[in-house]
Amino acid sequence: MPIKQAVDALQGEVARLKLELQSLQATQGVGNITVGNYLLARLAQLGVTKMFGLPGDFNLGFLDLVEDHPTIDWVGNCNELNAAYAADGYARVKQNSLGVVTTTFGVGELSAMNGIAGAFSEMVPVLHLVGAPSTSQHKTRPILHHTLGDGRYDAYTIASKQFTILQTALVNKHEVAHQIDEALTVCITKARPVYMTLPTDMVHQEISGERLKIPLTRQAAINDPQTEEFVLDLIHERVKEVGGDVVILVDACVIRFDVQDEVNEFLKQTGFPVYSTPMGKSCVNESYKRYGGIYIGTITHPLAKERVENAKLIISVGSLQSDFNTGNFSYNIPIRRHIELHSDHTKVQYALFKDIGMKHLLPKLTERLQHFYPIASKLPVAPFTDLVPTSQENDQTIVHAYFWPRVGQFFHPKDVIVTETGTANFGILDVPLPDGTKLISQVLWGSIGWSVGSALGAAFAAREVGKDRVILFVGEGSLQLTVQEISPMIRYGLKPIIFVINNSGYTIERYIHGKHRKYNNVDNWKWTSLLDTFGGNMEQPYESYSVKTRAELDTLLDQSSFAAANKIQLVEVIMPALDAPLALERQAEMTGKGNQYATVI
Amino acid sequence: MPIKQAVDALQGEVARLKLELQSLQATQGVGNITVGNYLLARLAQLGVTKMFGLPGDFNLGFLDLVEDHPTIDWVGNCNELNAAYAADGYARVKQNSLGVVTTTFGVGELSAMNGIAGAFSEMVPVLHLVGAPSTSQHKTRPILHHTLGDGRYDAYTIASKQFTILQTALVNKHEVAHQIDEALTVCITKARPVYMTLPTDMVHQEISGERLKIPLTRQAAINDPQTEEFVLDLIHERVKEVGGDVVILVDACVIRFDVQDEVNEFLKQTGFPVYSTPMGKSCVNESYKRYGGIYIGTITHPLAKERVENAKLIISVGSLQSDFNTGNFSYNIPIRRHIELHSDHTKVQYALFKDIGMKHLLPKLTERLQHFYPIASKLPVAPFTDLVPTSQENDQTIVHAYFWPRVGQFFHPKDVIVTETGTANFGILDVPLPDGTKLISQVLWGSIGWSVGSALGAAFAAREVGKDRVILFVGEGSLQLTVQEISPMIRYGLKPIIFVINNSGYTIERYIHGKHRKYNNVDNWKWTSLLDTFGGNMEQPYESYSVKTRAELDTLLDQSSFAAANKIQLVEVIMPALDAPLALERQAEMTGKGNQYATVI
Repeated sequence: MPIKQAVDALQGEVARLKLELQSLQATQGVGNITVGNYLLARLAQLGVTKMFGLPGDFNLGFLDLVEDHPTIDWVGNCNELNAAYAADGYARVKQNSLGVVTTTFGVGELSAMNGIAGAFSEMVPVLHLVGAPSTSQHKTRPILHHTLGDGRYDAYTIASKQFTILQTALVNKHEVAHQIDEALTVCITKARPVYMTLPTDMVHQEISGERLKIPLTRQAAINDPQTEEFVLDLIHERVKEVGGDVVILVDACVIRFDVQDEVNEFLKQTGFPVYSTPMGKSCVNESYKRYGGIYIGTITHPLAKERVENAKLIISVGSLQSDFNTGNFSYNIPIRRHIELHSDHTKVQYALFKDIGMKHLLPKLTERLQHFYPIASKLPVAPFTDLVPTSQENDQTIVHAYFWPRVGQFFHPKDVIVTETGTANFGILDVPLPDGTKLISQVLWGSIGWSVGSALGAAFAAREVGKDRVILFVGEGSLQLTVQEISPMIRYGLKPIIFVINNSGYTIERYIHGKHRKYNNVDNWKWTSLLDTFGGNMEQPYESYSVKTRAELDTLLDQSSFAAANKIQLVEVIMPALDAPLALERQAEMTGKGNQYATVI
Repeated sequence: MPIKQAVDALQGEVARLKLELQSLQATQGVGNITVGNYLLARLAQLGVTKMFGLPGDFNLGFLDLVEDHPTIDWVGNCNELNAAYAADGYARVKQNSLGVVTTTFGVGELSAMNGIAGAFSEMVPVLHLVGAPSTSQHKTRPILHHTLGDGRYDAYTIASKQFTILQTALVNKHEVAHQIDEALTVCITKARPVYMTLPTDMVHQEISGERLKIPLTRQAAINDPQTEEFVLDLIHERVKEVGGDVVILVDACVIRFDVQDEVNEFLKQTGFPVYSTPMGKSCVNESYKRYGGIYIGTITHPLAKERVENAKLIISVGSLQSDFNTGNFSYNIPIRRHIELHSDHTKVQYALFKDIGMKHLLPKLTERLQHFYPIASKLPVAPFTDLVPTSQENDQTIVHAYFWPRVGQFFHPKDVIVTETGTANFGILDVPLPDGTKLISQVLWGSIGWSVGSALGAAFAAREVGKDRVILFVGEGSLQLTVQEISPMIRYGLKPIIFVINNSGYTIERYIHGKHRKYNNVDNWKWTSLLDTFGGNMEQPYESYSVKTRAELDTLLDQSSFAAANKIQLVEVIMPALDAPLALERQAEMTGKGNQYATVI
């Protein structure tokens, strides 16, 4: 395995160098592909099959090419923020590819900005392509519509710079191929959004397609062999010192930087117990016998907390220590017992090793540590099981303590589960997911409404990666932000199951502050009419349900026609306004304290 | 009149100086008002009665104060972009006040960004208030939710800098009163959005309320008397040279910088013919006998075009020469025949006079030029009347050429009319509006979906400024972007009439490019179900209609219960996909050419 890795990595390096060379040698050459189609060809090579966005007067010419493209489909969204969320959801499910959102100058791109910033924060590879005025208009800068009226054509790029890892303007035909290749490579390698503007008059300019023969690669950079060897020795020594008493903690970047296979191989060969953070959930199969559930600082279940924090050494992989991912920074893991493997560096206790990335380190670490298997595989692991409380006849209210274990039993292998910030993100934590399920959520950025657009993108991607159902859990408050994105779900014949948690307002906010405040109320729509209002004139089937008792919920979940998910379905689940998963209650309490509203200095 | 103006201006200057003095003298003082309430007190003084936005964990403590405030109401929107649009619409209708939108750190504020940028572009005074993490968190910069994960707490402010005229962070109790006063003064004086962050722990800090005794003022700066005199002489001379053959052209900034009274007095006393640009429409009563309709370059009706372009001198007031406001920059007004009055400068032919603003110049100009009345009042004016084509029994299709003149007859004095970018913005141009009506549209920024949020804000403001009905014209494509904002309209018992132009897609885009392209299609929702889906569980009345023939439209418009607008009403108007107002067809053709998609250089 390590040798194959090294070969792959070297091949990646060679391809990169060839491209670099080609771009330096670039001459006028014989033009044989348009700029627009060059970009599409590159996206197609990277496995992109859907492009999200809205038409706008500066991207229409390019959209002709998309509409005519043999393998990339245009998905028209209802607004740009939702389109950005969809691209994000698509990229999360379709690992090793990227999401693409296309907007128009100013109005469209700024509407998408929160979605792009979320992809930056959560490390999701998204290309934000913006149709811009022509290159000559960029020079004369007339007061076109969609401009600020003062000739600042660069204002949007300046703003985007805060939320993307690279910005590039395709204004010179001799440079665009290189620019496109570089932007896409950075996007997929760094797992961050990039920003690209395409002026109207550049779309049909012809350039050489020669570079397309060399595919772009996502290979992680190779570690310096000597430093890597040193790190491996050091980690081995530390593990030996503690007699193999090690716990592994998997986190968000295992998924983002595509090391799931390496991690699972490492776990299998070494036998160490493994726990996951909220953002790492589902990157390790939860039926795995050495898996002990979620570690989230002080919010962790007592036994799991003890098992993690009492280990003599904790190796965290792809850690991302945000407040909601760590029980408000309440890890009880001292640095001297902590080894951190990251995408671009490694930390062994207090020692930092720059540019030693986990992708290539992990297989070698597996080789070094697998001899601990006899000890490691016997270390006790906290049990992680799903217990549905027995329903009392006189207690039919659907509370979170009942709901989540119950839907846990409904999940199938290969479901894609999308949870919204709020009660859903916390409720899902205690539910053991069947092997192969994929959970996506936005724990760090936490923009309410994200899950709806994201579910749209996820549903397209799910089909392609062999996943089965897409199940969305969203509060009715959050759904109101982005509700229109259900419309394209119907149009394109997608079949998500949408659980709308109707609990009379923003429950997560109520727990943080203002429990009984009116500002935390939201309107109580006729949720079961939504699909009909959006889809009644379309030809796709749909069905809506409302459940307010445990018995009704059970009946619905047990219905095979419902579980078959052969049409889009929406389930309104009526729950109490002031009920929440325990983890949320505790997180919200800590967040509320951090806000210090009452403090007068 | 000029003397009163001068006195007012001087009083404004005195108030500003007192504040400046007070802020320099500021000592620890006796704290007697919280920072949050100081801000609210200032907003209340400026006539703000509604604050738009969404609750988010970093603004909740402040929202307590809003909810408890005696004269400012919290309006909970469905999402932040819509909230920004609502604040924009509120400010447009409630001149001399401002709009306020409150969001939370990162996620909320970025979602609002397109709305704020639109307010910047179109010169609308909006305060964007952002609830931010505590001042101590700003120092330690933990990876909180809603952050980018890399500690860049200033990223959002940097981005906002591109779209607001002032950014201020309320982090020091000894400075906040001055900061708030300065920000609000700049906002209302420059008619541009300002950006303000309020950390959680600052909300309840106590500061002196002493400054509140001195009201903030919107007085325009005084012109230098000698330069002003020179400019008046020069203009007088030019008018004399051409024997009084002058045409006045009123534009957006007449409304934005609050010189409607001065302009109308000028017109009345001098008798000059007056025309309006699209963005200036409704700032002069359209029944005024010296009013000749819309001037929009080559798109102008031939007689009006001739009258304007053949005048020996054109005085434009508050001009804003954007593409859609000028028939794609097709003015045929040579500089040597053009005098421009602006908010902060004046141009007489080629001569620029900085800091000579129209607010104080206009009354003096009236005095100087009124003796031309006998000549000026006899100059011919193009007629501007509303002619509804006769319906043929065999031609019942509702085309734009029929629709707009017909709804023109439906308008009442004091209606507020909101038109969406697209067919509506162009269709309304030829409709003479009754005296006192107010038209709001977003001709320069042109963000589709804006009109829906804006209509919500406009409807609140309309009640307060003695306006009557709010009538919204929006295409079904645009409505899909922001549709949820109909929900608060119902919740708060607002009673707009919403005309949904259902023409099977983005017609304005079809005219620019891609007439038959699929990317210009949108889903055909059950539009008449919308109000019921959103409002069916609320206690407010609502009614929906669908009209597909001219006879059906006529019957509805003639129905007094409909015209009474005593509940929220939605009218689906079915129109052909490829029909558009003539002005749009011509504008779109020019825009499409500008985009140069076909050009290969």
